[in-house]
Amino acid sequence: MTNVIWAVVGILVFCACVCGLENGLARTPPMGWLAWQRFRCNTDCVNDPHNCISESLFMQMADIIVTQGYRDLGYDLVSLDDCWLSRERDARGRLQPDPFRFPSGIAALADYMHKRGLKFGIYEDYGNFTCAGYPGILGHLQTDAQTFGDWGVDYVKLDGCYSHPVDMDKGYPLFGFYLNQTLRPMVYSCSWPVYQTYSGMTPNYTAIINTCNLWRNFDDIQDSWESVQRIIDYYGDNQDDIVPNAGPGHWNDPDMLIIGNFGLSYEQSKSQMAMWAIFAAPLLMSVDLRTIRPEYKAILQNKAVIAIDQDPLGIQGKRIYKDKGIEIWARPITPVFQRHYSYAVAFLNRRTDGTPSEVSVTLRELGLDFTGGYSITDVFDGVHYGTVLPDKRFKVDVNPSGVVLVRCDLVKSTGFGTRSQFREPPQQNAFRNPFQNNLFSPFGQQRHF
Amino acid sequence: MTNVIWAVVGILVFCACVCGLENGLARTPPMGWLAWQRFRCNTDCVNDPHNCISESLFMQMADIIVTQGYRDLGYDLVSLDDCWLSRERDARGRLQPDPFRFPSGIAALADYMHKRGLKFGIYEDYGNFTCAGYPGILGHLQTDAQTFGDWGVDYVKLDGCYSHPVDMDKGYPLFGFYLNQTLRPMVYSCSWPVYQTYSGMTPNYTAIINTCNLWRNFDDIQDSWESVQRIIDYYGDNQDDIVPNAGPGHWNDPDMLIIGNFGLSYEQSKSQMAMWAIFAAPLLMSVDLRTIRPEYKAILQNKAVIAIDQDPLGIQGKRIYKDKGIEIWARPITPVFQRHYSYAVAFLNRRTDGTPSEVSVTLRELGLDFTGGYSITDVFDGVHYGTVLPDKRFKVDVNPSGVVLVRCDLVKSTGFGTRSQFREPPQQNAFRNPFQNNLFSPFGQQRHF
Repeated sequence: MTNVIWAVVGILVFCACVCGLENGLARTPPMGWLAWQRFRCNTDCVNDPHNCISESLFMQMADIIVTQGYRDLGYDLVSLDDCWLSRERDARGRLQPDPFRFPSGIAALADYMHKRGLKFGIYEDYGNFTCAGYPGILGHLQTDAQTFGDWGVDYVKLDGCYSHPVDMDKGYPLFGFYLNQTLRPMVYSCSWPVYQTYSGMTPNYTAIINTCNLWRNFDDIQDSWESVQRIIDYYGDNQDDIVPNAGPGHWNDPDMLIIGNFGLSYEQSKSQMAMWAIFAAPLLMSVDLRTIRPEYKAILQNKAVIAIDQDPLGIQGKRIYKDKGIEIWARPITPVFQRHYSYAVAFLNRRTDGTPSEVSVTLRELGLDFTGGYSITDVFDGVHYGTVLPDKRFKVDVNPSGVVLVRCDLVKSTGFGTRSQFREPPQQNAFRNPFQNNLFSPFGQQRHF
Repeated sequence: MTNVIWAVVGILVFCACVCGLENGLARTPPMGWLAWQRFRCNTDCVNDPHNCISESLFMQMADIIVTQGYRDLGYDLVSLDDCWLSRERDARGRLQPDPFRFPSGIAALADYMHKRGLKFGIYEDYGNFTCAGYPGILGHLQTDAQTFGDWGVDYVKLDGCYSHPVDMDKGYPLFGFYLNQTLRPMVYSCSWPVYQTYSGMTPNYTAIINTCNLWRNFDDIQDSWESVQRIIDYYGDNQDDIVPNAGPGHWNDPDMLIIGNFGLSYEQSKSQMAMWAIFAAPLLMSVDLRTIRPEYKAILQNKAVIAIDQDPLGIQGKRIYKDKGIEIWARPITPVFQRHYSYAVAFLNRRTDGTPSEVSVTLRELGLDFTGGYSITDVFDGVHYGTVLPDKRFKVDVNPSGVVLVRCDLVKSTGFGTRSQFREPPQQNAFRNPFQNNLFSPFGQQRHF
């Protein structure tokens, strides 16, 4: 009988590990606000009450997210990061927040979010300590998962400091199993692959995508264009390995949006937003929403770029051209028709030579060969280029460290010269591979950069 | 008799080379607008008439410089850079502008500037060609100097492509001699040291400061914070060699201001402006003044930072502290009193960790030990800190990739507890070396970064 029970448990664990979390969440990339990149581990609420990690900060952000329209655009998560914890567990071994900075408790903070139609996220670490030295979950996996469920947490970011990357192959799925056991749906954000990559291991992405709703592959983002570029390069250079892992419910996470902070210019901010949309990335703002300048808020609230990021197909984009500082990235999106995709195309200028570069291509060179053509719209400036046929030359001027992001919607010919946009539900498996054929072939000589 | 003539010529040349240009110009660092960094070598006036290198572009910039208040703040130069020339000299061997893009001729363009109270600058190259391949001055030094004089040029930037750096030790002084011979006062901007440094030579700065009003030491600036940081590092790392060369009439030139272009954030733009003021650098804007956003215009038009840059002492500042991404730079300025200087102090945050860093110092640690104290004002936000005594702790919060620039004006005690600012004419030679004593000693452990 004991053997039977263990067999059942084994099957359940196996299923959690291999068949996946199957929590039905994050069918499109999560969107919301995360504390870390902007507020870090500022715990000095005596001298800096306005900016320290406290319940007040998260309540303020939640209020702005609701009142200033972020929530209604999809940014429905408000998430803690490191440094919310007390240094000690409570008498029953449960995690507890810092009592001075979170006097109302975490359940009350989650409730504050829920009452405003928001989800509440929390941060912990699969290790002995969090990265900032607060208690980690090792030795308390089941308790902590249950605590999060009891508190009404909707999203768990699990970091990987102070643990052995080898242990993560068991540890992350096991904590996911305990999260599932709570029966409370919680998005599960993992740092599992990045720690393994850094230690020289090859992450088991089959296990990862079946366990986590999103996962970090690479460096923490810093407040600089250099950091954003390194992440863009990582995603381009490793795209054959990591792009296929993205899809509804499971996403590569290139880390937070730093738009509106100190380090990015306006052009660079549009570039981050465009590239994160190409990556099908979680859109996790980390900015002081109380002071963000209007032009940066407008980037974060751009409906057209959000729509690309949140496209229901959930296919992550790829770099299809790179030369002399000019890159072209493409992401298959809806609408789809006759086994052809529509595309979001980003023309990214990595040059710094002071004056815009003209990029001139035909859609066919980008792999967009639908004979009915594509209806092209510039996502940031709203210019509509009308219907462009595959062999028509198409030019954009791209600012230094800037981007031009267009969406190219398939046009279905209705005969007799009239065309209109046609949408049908995605049938992903039936389609040709969007990254086959000439997408990776270098262009000819006729372009002017 | 011939020998006597040659002796006289020799003395004149010797005097030009060793005693210096002595043209009485650039007693403070030149200020104005230069085309290159923003408009580069765009000669396509057919397809891009609005942005190509043409007389129209320079006339537009001149008009804005006058009408929008730049001239009255000191930005009184409008200067061509490369790509203004015709590919051929005229029948008499003289330089001529591209006839299609400069149909009115250069003399007319200079006249346009002069009528608006502006100076007119031109670009040429001590070599067979300019960097972009237009005719250089080699073989035509006297003719070209005279042509510039005839045209009414006020400022000559002489580049160094397509020449041998070894030849520059004779060539740059000789062209300066011919410029002097025209009897027209022309500021002389040299690229002499940078080409020599790149070829492994050690520039003869004694000759350079006696020949040139300003000179480039290092890389061309590019439209990025990375480029600005490289230049800042160069000036800090080589300050013992190059800072002493700066003074009224002769300046190190860290290249153009890129504020308002595509690559710098608002914080980084303030950082460039602050650091250029610390460097006693020429303030040569290179931005499209037609479209610059108001907040960037405000940085360029900040009177307090311009006043530091244009301080009459003309002493270039130095880096006096560097640790964990925080740098402190100081520049001695007026007012002076009892062999003590006032100072401009820049707290520069090279970190990118998303949240401001607190820097806490005493003025004495910075070498500001005047017992009467210093009246401290934040140059960008206008906050006045009152009079701060040398041993009082002084704190600033510095944003990532940002700067806090303060001016610390000496306060003369008038007895009985009252203090007021005191100004007297500079007597530079009588003063103690502003960079002696404890300015370079690392701080103790008590600061909080």
